Amino acid sequence: MDAQLDKLKFDANGLVPVIVQDVANGEVLVMAFTNREALEETIRTGKVHTYSRSRGRVALKGESSGHFQHVKEVRTDCDRDAVLIKVEQVGGACHEGYRSCFFRKYENGAGDWEIVESKVFDPDAVYKK
Amino acid sequence: MDAQLDKLKFDANGLVPVIVQDVANGEVLVMAFTNREALEETIRTGKVHTYSRSRGRVALKGESSGHFQHVKEVRTDCDRDAVLIKVEQVGGACHEGYRSCFFRKYENGAGDWEIVESKVFDPDAVYKK
Repeated sequence: MDAQLDKLKFDANGLVPVIVQDVANGEVLVMAFTNREALEETIRTGKVHTYSRSRGRVALKGESSGHFQHVKEVRTDCDRDAVLIKVEQVGGACHEGYRSCFFRKYENGAGDWEIVESKVFDPDAVYKK
Repeated sequence: MDAQLDKLKFDANGLVPVIVQDVANGEVLVMAFTNREALEETIRTGKVHTYSRSRGRVALKGESSGHFQHVKEVRTDCDRDAVLIKVEQVGGACHEGYRSCFFRKYENGAGDWEIVESKVFDPDAVYKK
């Protein structure tokens, strides 16, 4: 039992949103959801685990790509209903090949969000290994 | 109508999570929820608005404290189901008096999350004005 995790306010599905941030430059890498088990695994292993709602299970971030997120610090907010994890990111956090999932920027008057980052790896090569 | 906002994937309640980040130093200030109307107001006014689930309405961040968040950049992620807003923060983002809501850090073996930041304003003074 971990008394600190007991103090988090998980939602009706046992989840809280989690923000993963690059400890080196502050870049927000990904926003996902986590649960009690994924947080315990994250703390135990030092690698970010999240709860994948699409797969219905706890998943090690980077399990197929090798792009692990090494945990440097875990924080929660005033309401204890969100988690922030600062990490050292291997490769890129985004399955589309970008360092951060937040590679699309709002541009006033544009028809679509503009891609403002460059890919750091080729997802076809990485996920077909 | 804003074609870019049409491309966001709002959940069954019309919401998406929003992360607000200090554009100057990358500090994650707050994690909240927003909806179509709050995003339109954010873009129109240049000040962050969120959807307050407790109050059941769109709220201007800083409306009682004067601690506005001036919008510098709006991003979305690969799945278009989360928003990141980079801002210039006036005062502090947290109603408890801290610059960031993420002022509590996980400490292995501790009984509770440790407060690792200092207050930047006195909430009693600010909210009783």
